[in-house]
Amino acid sequence: MQLLEERILKDGKVKDGGILKVDSFLNHQMDVSLFGEMAKEFYRLFAGEGINKILTIEASGIGIACITAQAFGCPVIFAKKTKTKNIAGDVYTSKVESFTHGTTYDIIVSKEFLLPDDKVLIIDDFLANGAALEGLISLVNDAGASLIGAGIAIEKAFQPGGEKLRSKGVRIESLAKIKSMEGGKPVFG
Amino acid sequence: MQLLEERILKDGKVKDGGILKVDSFLNHQMDVSLFGEMAKEFYRLFAGEGINKILTIEASGIGIACITAQAFGCPVIFAKKTKTKNIAGDVYTSKVESFTHGTTYDIIVSKEFLLPDDKVLIIDDFLANGAALEGLISLVNDAGASLIGAGIAIEKAFQPGGEKLRSKGVRIESLAKIKSMEGGKPVFG
Repeated sequence: MQLLEERILKDGKVKDGGILKVDSFLNHQMDVSLFGEMAKEFYRLFAGEGINKILTIEASGIGIACITAQAFGCPVIFAKKTKTKNIAGDVYTSKVESFTHGTTYDIIVSKEFLLPDDKVLIIDDFLANGAALEGLISLVNDAGASLIGAGIAIEKAFQPGGEKLRSKGVRIESLAKIKSMEGGKPVFG
Repeated sequence: MQLLEERILKDGKVKDGGILKVDSFLNHQMDVSLFGEMAKEFYRLFAGEGINKILTIEASGIGIACITAQAFGCPVIFAKKTKTKNIAGDVYTSKVESFTHGTTYDIIVSKEFLLPDDKVLIIDDFLANGAALEGLISLVNDAGASLIGAGIAIEKAFQPGGEKLRSKGVRIESLAKIKSMEGGKPVFG
């Protein structure tokens, strides 16, 4: 998606270790008019699939997910991160390893909001190692719901998450796909 | 706001200890079409005040804030919760006490996104003891920005936050104001 790629080139900042910071428009300050254009693109890609629920993960996926949900006319559920093991039987839970923070956390979603009849689109801001996305897919599978696909704002295609999950048959649509960070600049592909 | 009050009566669940659960439409599963109506009401209340930035706090404020920001045509910033003391000088920080969890955490916002010229509307899903709202107001003050007011989805008016902050001159507009929880049912006022 050209608009997003141009915005990344204009306002993204590449830090040491190839970390791309997009917190001026995507995940700290949020440009909701850009999100509106992204939502249109997700709708174009996934319309006609009968999607009735959007699943995301707190915190930075929530804004994009909500504005995308307006396009689909469906609700959003966000999986919550928790460090306390939930012993109640009323949630689906999955373990996620954070490579950024070197920690592991559980994500949970209430069973009452993810149902076998649901056709689910996962929305998130980033895809890199794919740990969060795998965790979300696991929640969808545990619920017996149908996963239609995942809509991602920015995929770091030089990290293994996208390839790994596509090879398992997951449909992933990333609006900006960074194939390398040459000389401190994202290169799309 | 009648639509929200009716929805609370229909889908809200009152748990032991007077806890109101609205996670089927507000803060776990999110009804974005309801959020759209709430956004219109916030816009009606605060239009003409020159608001150019909406500030909220992760996680459950983000959805309402983003959809409200569409009405105002401005970006959202969300304050991040953190347990690690941030020693870098590039963020404003404030301490928030969580009465629900019996813990204290820091909230931070990057200095580059909250500026002295900004006219800020704070949006959040709940107001009870007012700790989170006080923390957000403190960030706005630290930045030297102007606080126009706070738009809250549900205020528990039988808890002290709203009164305390209004008496300090903060304009707070709550779309549903619960004055008591008699017999396990919210009473609005």
